[in-house]
Amino acid sequence: MRILGVDPGLTRLGVGVVDNPRAKDVSMVDVTVLMTPSDWDISRRLHSMQEGVAALLDQHRPDVVVIERVFAQHNVRTVMGTAQVSGIVMALAFERSITVSHRTPSEVKAAVTGYGGAKKPQVGAMVKTILGLDEIPKPADAADALALAITEAWRGGAPVAANSGSETPAQRAWREALSKSAQNKLTK
Amino acid sequence: MRILGVDPGLTRLGVGVVDNPRAKDVSMVDVTVLMTPSDWDISRRLHSMQEGVAALLDQHRPDVVVIERVFAQHNVRTVMGTAQVSGIVMALAFERSITVSHRTPSEVKAAVTGYGGAKKPQVGAMVKTILGLDEIPKPADAADALALAITEAWRGGAPVAANSGSETPAQRAWREALSKSAQNKLTK
Repeated sequence: MRILGVDPGLTRLGVGVVDNPRAKDVSMVDVTVLMTPSDWDISRRLHSMQEGVAALLDQHRPDVVVIERVFAQHNVRTVMGTAQVSGIVMALAFERSITVSHRTPSEVKAAVTGYGGAKKPQVGAMVKTILGLDEIPKPADAADALALAITEAWRGGAPVAANSGSETPAQRAWREALSKSAQNKLTK
Repeated sequence: MRILGVDPGLTRLGVGVVDNPRAKDVSMVDVTVLMTPSDWDISRRLHSMQEGVAALLDQHRPDVVVIERVFAQHNVRTVMGTAQVSGIVMALAFERSITVSHRTPSEVKAAVTGYGGAKKPQVGAMVKTILGLDEIPKPADAADALALAITEAWRGGAPVAANSGSETPAQRAWREALSKSAQNKLTK
């Protein structure tokens, strides 16, 4: 199964693509960040993001598109732009008969680091470890998009609890091993 | 000049088209409300709205698309859907080199009724009067979309104050005449 994760935004839109042939096995196919200048009209920025995402969907032909779920409690202006972009991505996916999934930031953090309140550097470090990369993908939008795709690969249709209380013992052991590995890399 | 107004939404999306050959002269070209069932996936609903709006843009070839500006202070779920739809409409307009304008609900009420806090029935009554229609367009989304288009026709590029303090004497006289006419119709 191929999964394309989208961290939506008008200024930067992260796209991370992973293959997930079986169980916990995930490998990176592509990672990129689309950008639009803040002095462009919003319609132009939205259209540019639409073209960019459409090209990536047609290139990678994912089975699932997973988009970070947007909340309205933060900066209203930013949230509106992010919602507008995510709507465009959803319509593009539907047009191509690709399943759309949503994950909240805390679901992704819980899945990837074992802790729903993890910080961005921890998420980046785990993404690097899980995918066996040489470096943490930059900027954070790139790592976040890959983390979304990894979460979808592992958890499939089920929503992920923002705490690790619902883990099986095997999942916990695996997570702890990964978590230690990431900490080693971080403190090196 | 032809103006297409959009009152965005996932459940109902109002579209009103007016021609504005000169000054205050406006006439209705079309009014319609696109709808999607609430039990469809959001991506399917967004895609359906995208197809519907694209068809209307290609049919009417407006010079300007004016979209009601979305605010985040109300129901978060509804606002997100509305923002997603409006993003799609903006990208469709850009793709066709159509100018995009935004108007707030209070700007539209101020332009059409002379009072930024006017109620929906007053807006509907004024739309009927201004366009010389036999009935108030139903549902409210239809009347709102026409009111958006009328506002854009009259005010062009300038934002409209939500009170009538910035009116010229001629504008006020004209508004009052219309307002009386609408009240007559309403109390008949």
